[in-house]
Amino acid sequence: MQIYSRPIRFEDVDAARIVFFANYVRYAHEAMEDFFRDLDGGYCRLITERGIGLPAVHLDIAYSRPLRYGDVLRIETTVDRIGTRSAVLRYRMIRAADDELAAELVHTVVLSDLHAMRSCDMPEDVRAILTAHLAPTPSLSQAARSPKTAP
Amino acid sequence: MQIYSRPIRFEDVDAARIVFFANYVRYAHEAMEDFFRDLDGGYCRLITERGIGLPAVHLDIAYSRPLRYGDVLRIETTVDRIGTRSAVLRYRMIRAADDELAAELVHTVVLSDLHAMRSCDMPEDVRAILTAHLAPTPSLSQAARSPKTAP
Amino acid sequence: MQIYSRPIRFEDVDAARIVFFANYVRYAHEAMEDFFRDLDGGYCRLITERGIGLPAVHLDIAYSRPLRYGDVLRIETTVDRIGTRSAVLRYRMIRAADDELAAELVHTVVLSDLHAMRSCDMPEDVRAILTAHLAPTPSLSQAARSPKTAP
Amino acid sequence: MQIYSRPIRFEDVDAARIVFFANYVRYAHEAMEDFFRDLDGGYCRLITERGIGLPAVHLDIAYSRPLRYGDVLRIETTVDRIGTRSAVLRYRMIRAADDELAAELVHTVVLSDLHAMRSCDMPEDVRAILTAHLAPTPSLSQAARSPKTAP
Repeated sequence: MQIYSRPIRFEDVDAARIVFFANYVRYAHEAMEDFFRDLDGGYCRLITERGIGLPAVHLDIAYSRPLRYGDVLRIETTVDRIGTRSAVLRYRMIRAADDELAAELVHTVVLSDLHAMRSCDMPEDVRAILTAHLAPTPSLSQAARSPKTAP
Repeated sequence: MQIYSRPIRFEDVDAARIVFFANYVRYAHEAMEDFFRDLDGGYCRLITERGIGLPAVHLDIAYSRPLRYGDVLRIETTVDRIGTRSAVLRYRMIRAADDELAAELVHTVVLSDLHAMRSCDMPEDVRAILTAHLAPTPSLSQAARSPKTAP
Repeated sequence: MQIYSRPIRFEDVDAARIVFFANYVRYAHEAMEDFFRDLDGGYCRLITERGIGLPAVHLDIAYSRPLRYGDVLRIETTVDRIGTRSAVLRYRMIRAADDELAAELVHTVVLSDLHAMRSCDMPEDVRAILTAHLAPTPSLSQAARSPKTAP
Repeated sequence: MQIYSRPIRFEDVDAARIVFFANYVRYAHEAMEDFFRDLDGGYCRLITERGIGLPAVHLDIAYSRPLRYGDVLRIETTVDRIGTRSAVLRYRMIRAADDELAAELVHTVVLSDLHAMRSCDMPEDVRAILTAHLAPTPSLSQAARSPKTAP
């Protein structure tokens, strides 16, 4: 599990005064950049020099509690599953003040050659980081049956 | 089905030169604002004067094709399910140039009193608009098994 | 003068409940994309195929009135000055409901080869559009002395 | 002078592959939140509990060098001027890798009662922080004449 902390910013809320629901996806991406910080040159070099990216093919978000300006998120990133050319990351976003789960995201990515824009084999250094944080959790279908995510 | 069109903007892409995956959620919200345009005062008055909102409790996104600057999206919004205090909206995001599906989002909202921040009964005018676009589709679990969304 | 209209969106406001001050810059860029819509392929083709852009070198913003969710902006775009490799655009952002000026932006751009990332001569079709909307206004230094912008 | 560091993120660039010009304003606001971190409860409590904000009335941005994904910014914040109800902050945004100035922003704010949305006297704790970083610099009109900002 890798931990990334992130304050909710002044501009992250919307006219309902809670964090706009798209921003959780930005937070997940920030956590993913942090997750791959031990790659040589980080996630940035993977994208800009090696020409390899991890576009999302699926994203599942369960929102549990609203977040407000001034909250701080603790994002716990783990890996549910690793394939030949894909992986499933899980982000548990926890409100730091009271340790309550605010949202949980399950993010399926496909290793892709960004020039050809087609899938490619997973580089070994990417696989090593994913493997170090592999922590299989209940399947999506089970999560979908939990009362928290099915109003 | 309600249709909302939206160009991909200059700033919507990321360092991989495709639309950043969080932006699809913004597009869905724009389509939802448009979906409720026939409310008296629109979605805006619902939020700012009536104090009622539709926070997301669940969001499921299947990304099928990357989008680029210059593409135009046609978003087809329908309603999968209507409950006492909740509803499930579906957005099919289609690349206008070739009618290919770029992404499909399933968005579960709970009618909420924004002051108390708790669920409330669905106002009749909100229900009427949802009902006018009710178009039940295959369940999420079936969608999750389709090859397109499970790489 | 070219006119571009734009609603203030749900997510454009901040924790102070008014439009976040960075968003005016996004609105100006949207107006600029619209301003160049008569280029063959629009602003998009200029950037993505011809490899020519208009990076900002200077931006001056006078904020007059706060904007809120539900307001609609009418943006009037004119051109203050055209050089060999640069131009100065002016955006008057007017709240449509009462015709009050909300903000005025003066935007200096330099025609640039995006590959070499250095200035280049202005293409004739770009110059033609700028020239069609040339409407010199009081200089920046005069504007800076006006009471509106110097609280 | 207060220093705030900030990486350029994956989604901060635009279709021209450089940081979108509106994002510098977001960075300035982040630096301002950091600048006021020693207020009791920080900038957040000022806004959300004390009901006092610092809306911009003027912003002047000189862009010197493009920024790219992977760059890290060092933002040096100082105060040019303090009035009864207003202040002028200056943000020098420096590319950390080579100490080159990327942009300089001059930001005039008016202390405002966010409920009445009108100017108010400056609280003493706000004034104390501003005063601690007061560092008058050449006037805007002089800066505007420098070759760096006049392409």
